[in-house]
Amino acid sequence: MTDPAFGTDIKAWCRRTGNTLLGVEKADRAFVAYIKKGARPAGGVSCCTASPAQVPQGKSLIVFDGDLDKAIASFIIANGAAAMGRPVTMFFTFWGLNILRKDNPPPVKKSFIEKMFGMMMPRGSKKLKLSNMNMFGMGPRMIRGIMRKKNVASLEELIEQAKNNGVKLVACSMSMDVMGIKQEELIDGIETGGVAAYLGEAEECNVNLFI
Amino acid sequence: MTDPAFGTDIKAWCRRTGNTLLGVEKADRAFVAYIKKGARPAGGVSCCTASPAQVPQGKSLIVFDGDLDKAIASFIIANGAAAMGRPVTMFFTFWGLNILRKDNPPPVKKSFIEKMFGMMMPRGSKKLKLSNMNMFGMGPRMIRGIMRKKNVASLEELIEQAKNNGVKLVACSMSMDVMGIKQEELIDGIETGGVAAYLGEAEECNVNLFI
Amino acid sequence: MTDPAFGTDIKAWCRRTGNTLLGVEKADRAFVAYIKKGARPAGGVSCCTASPAQVPQGKSLIVFDGDLDKAIASFIIANGAAAMGRPVTMFFTFWGLNILRKDNPPPVKKSFIEKMFGMMMPRGSKKLKLSNMNMFGMGPRMIRGIMRKKNVASLEELIEQAKNNGVKLVACSMSMDVMGIKQEELIDGIETGGVAAYLGEAEECNVNLFI
Repeated sequence: MTDPAFGTDIKAWCRRTGNTLLGVEKADRAFVAYIKKGARPAGGVSCCTASPAQVPQGKSLIVFDGDLDKAIASFIIANGAAAMGRPVTMFFTFWGLNILRKDNPPPVKKSFIEKMFGMMMPRGSKKLKLSNMNMFGMGPRMIRGIMRKKNVASLEELIEQAKNNGVKLVACSMSMDVMGIKQEELIDGIETGGVAAYLGEAEECNVNLFI
Repeated sequence: MTDPAFGTDIKAWCRRTGNTLLGVEKADRAFVAYIKKGARPAGGVSCCTASPAQVPQGKSLIVFDGDLDKAIASFIIANGAAAMGRPVTMFFTFWGLNILRKDNPPPVKKSFIEKMFGMMMPRGSKKLKLSNMNMFGMGPRMIRGIMRKKNVASLEELIEQAKNNGVKLVACSMSMDVMGIKQEELIDGIETGGVAAYLGEAEECNVNLFI
Repeated sequence: MTDPAFGTDIKAWCRRTGNTLLGVEKADRAFVAYIKKGARPAGGVSCCTASPAQVPQGKSLIVFDGDLDKAIASFIIANGAAAMGRPVTMFFTFWGLNILRKDNPPPVKKSFIEKMFGMMMPRGSKKLKLSNMNMFGMGPRMIRGIMRKKNVASLEELIEQAKNNGVKLVACSMSMDVMGIKQEELIDGIETGGVAAYLGEAEECNVNLFI
């Protein structure tokens, strides 16, 4: 496995399972992680560690669906939590990845099937459908028009706000691999990570949603 | 912004961020909130505040989809939790709002596009589709028939039970605004609230679902 | 009600509400539970019960959708959490039940409508559709082909891994009843349970997702 997100994942895994990551090394066709079992010093864990200050306050959202309405809902929740000063992480996986695609990506080398996939899926936030009442694209245009009139931020503005508010946007590395989407095809400011990175974050949150 | 749910939202926001809400005032075209920063007295937070009694036990459900099957699942979970004595809040947003629409709403003033939206979306719990195997309305009728035969409560009964069990039903104020749905068009006993109200509740819950 | 999952449910309910289950008895057409109110001895609950060791670390997933992509996502999360040593429970409800159906079930007695339902719904993990880009079955085949090429485990392998990792797979008893699916039609190693069993587990988890 030559997953670029491997480092993030193994770090999260070690932090949460109480093991110590000594280092990660790139070998021939794999990564090697040096882990010291259970070596995290337990000092400092005393009677009252579970003080209110340590109750996790983060929010994590898995954005699985690439529908316009669900994308809007996700970013409204994320930005609301960020406005409360909470750390927020959004994981974009499967169809949710499409939300993060650039309008006009640079050319990248792809296999035939990856090219097909790339063409069939909506390229970026402006091409998303509605999960309901899509009506061949009339629905999304209607919703966008109404939201503009009602002074609700557009999806593109919500994404910008999220970045400015420090919301962490993570693209699922496995989905990128399966769908043949490269980092350069995603909008700027996106990290990549796998399931261990997600679980590591989620355990430090008190609200975890799958959208 | 003249959002009627503003008061609920700002109250929740202050409670959760440790600020004090001194008051809310209606100004010309806006609401003004008077907030004292961080003034909540910290007294009483001692070694053992994180006692079992204070572990949050609430349940919150965001009902995003307006499908019959997801609506049934939501209310079964909500009623189950209420039967365990837990505080439960259901937030109805986007298509989920349709579940709360009156069969036969009073006439309200709407713009052309709001009227169109109102007509195209299912009006109330009896008109909902299935997320799967809808088969032009045969699916919902089949499911309802089977559930009646198996003595499972109908969606309408589940909603009544939820109200009687003290489940808090909240309609998303932003969705109401975007879809042009007015409070009078919703069944009785529904509060309104925005994302801050949701997040305030969710932080006091140990189970938060997005359905 | 002659629900075989009744025992599991009432046990979970009692554990979580602080009542004591003295026993369950099968009566004529019902189950009778003998419950001693609030009798659970409170001894041992002292100042520091909320120590880090007791923060719940479980993960629960409600798998509602029977789509191939959502099934894969569910098992990847479940297996990831199991690899971190967390207790994981997956509840399969509504269309999610189809994931657990045997390819080639033994004949069971069914009503006409149950037979129809059984025929119309996908029988087992290999027949599942995609939630998006299904393209009359071409989509699932494409995704499976790509995943094989990229060395990602297939859904069937993920299910096997979950079982070997000790992930608890629970079929929703109410959904089984409504859809007319019997225990013998499900793959091996599946428990059954209702909403109380779910809530009992979820309260002992720090990540709860509805997929």
